Amino acid sequence: MGDYQDPMVQLELGGGSNALPYPRTFDPTAHDLDASFRLTRFADLKGRACKVPKEVLEKLVSSLQHDYMQDPDQPYMSLASPRIGIGLDCSVIPLRHGGLCMVQTTDFFYPIVDDPYMMGKITCANVLSDLYAMGVTECDNMLMLLAVSTKMHEKERDVVIPLIMRGFKDSALQAGTSVTGGHSVVNPWCTIGGVATTICQQNEFIVPDNAVIGDVLVLTKALGTQVAVCAHQWLDQAERWNRIKLVVSEEDVRKAYHRAMDSMARLNRVAARLMHKYNAHGATDVTGFGLLGHAQTLASHQKNEVSFVIHNLPVIAKMSAVAKACGNMFQLLQGHSAETSGGLLICLPREQAAAYCKDIEKQEGYQAWIIGIVEKGSRTARIIDKPRVIEVPAKD
Amino acid sequence: MGDYQDPMVQLELGGGSNALPYPRTFDPTAHDLDASFRLTRFADLKGRACKVPKEVLEKLVSSLQHDYMQDPDQPYMSLASPRIGIGLDCSVIPLRHGGLCMVQTTDFFYPIVDDPYMMGKITCANVLSDLYAMGVTECDNMLMLLAVSTKMHEKERDVVIPLIMRGFKDSALQAGTSVTGGHSVVNPWCTIGGVATTICQQNEFIVPDNAVIGDVLVLTKALGTQVAVCAHQWLDQAERWNRIKLVVSEEDVRKAYHRAMDSMARLNRVAARLMHKYNAHGATDVTGFGLLGHAQTLASHQKNEVSFVIHNLPVIAKMSAVAKACGNMFQLLQGHSAETSGGLLICLPREQAAAYCKDIEKQEGYQAWIIGIVEKGSRTARIIDKPRVIEVPAKD
Repeated sequence: MGDYQDPMVQLELGGGSNALPYPRTFDPTAHDLDASFRLTRFADLKGRACKVPKEVLEKLVSSLQHDYMQDPDQPYMSLASPRIGIGLDCSVIPLRHGGLCMVQTTDFFYPIVDDPYMMGKITCANVLSDLYAMGVTECDNMLMLLAVSTKMHEKERDVVIPLIMRGFKDSALQAGTSVTGGHSVVNPWCTIGGVATTICQQNEFIVPDNAVIGDVLVLTKALGTQVAVCAHQWLDQAERWNRIKLVVSEEDVRKAYHRAMDSMARLNRVAARLMHKYNAHGATDVTGFGLLGHAQTLASHQKNEVSFVIHNLPVIAKMSAVAKACGNMFQLLQGHSAETSGGLLICLPREQAAAYCKDIEKQEGYQAWIIGIVEKGSRTARIIDKPRVIEVPAKD
Repeated sequence: MGDYQDPMVQLELGGGSNALPYPRTFDPTAHDLDASFRLTRFADLKGRACKVPKEVLEKLVSSLQHDYMQDPDQPYMSLASPRIGIGLDCSVIPLRHGGLCMVQTTDFFYPIVDDPYMMGKITCANVLSDLYAMGVTECDNMLMLLAVSTKMHEKERDVVIPLIMRGFKDSALQAGTSVTGGHSVVNPWCTIGGVATTICQQNEFIVPDNAVIGDVLVLTKALGTQVAVCAHQWLDQAERWNRIKLVVSEEDVRKAYHRAMDSMARLNRVAARLMHKYNAHGATDVTGFGLLGHAQTLASHQKNEVSFVIHNLPVIAKMSAVAKACGNMFQLLQGHSAETSGGLLICLPREQAAAYCKDIEKQEGYQAWIIGIVEKGSRTARIIDKPRVIEVPAKD
């Protein structure tokens, strides 16, 4: 366990900042593991496939909604209760104490990158992202959920699990919070997740139901993380690689993978803070159900009769070409490709959106994009027929 | 999903009270499932076996402890940080608001009984039990964690998952709280768990570190839940059954199984409330590491130089005979048999303990037992050589 003090690991861990040293690849042999060790092989499903389908979940929980909805003493329940595993991003609970609310979320999933430290960071950023989507910028506590794979050798476990925990914890520290507890089990698939909780005043969060006609939609991270992660795994699989090697080079894939890791590990905290400054009318974060899936959920929760129309799709460089080469597999341009720890999708007043994007770029060095508009409609979301794909440069 | 309205199911669900209608067995065919359906077959490990061993966990998290311990600005961290997946039962976090604290816990595991509704109730009671062990009686919010087994057919899933959720939710309502969110994935093993959070004043919880020489140890539920659960499964397995049939009848096993389910589904809430009335010096709840494992952890956290000595073991009727017939398998009388949603183990002033036990029996109709003493020592716990086994009557 003293591995953390190993200079090699220290180098890999890099600084506490969002920016990572590149190029950076997890080298199993530096930890005395076999060169063929791949964290991602300790689970068989990733991304959207690991989620219970939205329709099924809706069916499963529908009978549980009813009771909450009718309770007039629970003003937030109509907001919170559709969120048993689906819906929007957090539960919001009024507390017994002085007008305070609890905003809380949980999330867990399977390894999608092979670097355990980065996997920990990504998991933490992904959990916190649900709070950030509500405009909450301060998290009061985190718990970590962990299942160690039954297939992991002791040696692998002793290397990998502390690195995951360290990544998770470092990300929490960077977010100004800490991890004070959690729970661990063994399970066939390695599983990582967390719980994030904030106690705040009502003005510290933004109920995501206030979009008005004329608003625009801003997205704060590029799409295509799952495509990049898969393409990177296919470097090891000749048959798969042959399908895409005409449209992309190995170098392209490695850069896209690093961009994806960097993006997934990045906190949406500044994006959340700026939601207040620029009077956002609501937001969600883009994760397992893809851009359109989450846009539809956000649209369905609006008070006003509005719909969302998406014109632009910012995508990690070359990943739309890879997705196209794979036929219907990802449905990236249809908005269904799963993202992990994706950006915030925010409804902003039209006159504020450009300033929002400029501000986030100034503070973080990352672009945000105006990707669509809010128009009159019946609370649905769609992507236009031939959306403009914005190629977002990959990491050098 | 309209199944909840089915009169058959309504009958099975029974009322909202802790007391269940008996005898009560989940009948898969009443839900159009195959008669051979067993929820417990959707995971291969139960009880202690599903936990990462305590020593391993201690090793894994030890490098993460250091940072917190040294932070003088975090007065509770020395309490909270040893609890990353091990240690005592909750995280305690001081908040930015008016002297309030957050007390929080999470837990998840695999099906141990075949009745999905009961499994939901047991899971919820088990999660809440960590709060109750801290003397916290009000839970402000719960989240539910759920993994649907990849091996479950659609039909099975549509019957079983809503029943689990309903059981979880009913238990939460009984505890005066509600389930406002959660997360679901698919996974080889069916997994169920939750998060429980309370925001409270500092006098609402009891830091479990104040045992003094002369205290006695009280236990609020009988041991042997895992033995009962296994014995019940062995009714279907001739070879296993042959090992124990000389010491126990089928009828005994069914009664013990019902007693175990009843016990695991019972909330430790009254036990927690009475901790305040009778000036408890600290408590823990008995779960996966068995009575002695949790007693040792509690002892190791004491401020005073004390040790715990356990003389009496209240055990569900006939289960100590079953455990003995199985050789070393359970280590029930050695204090290592895993319990699920077990009782509170409480350090009480000697002169208050009898009144505590009498009060809990009066309020709930369940016995509690004085099982040991606190003496001078080096913060360890042990069971005497030949402890007295108290046979706790099984359910008719």
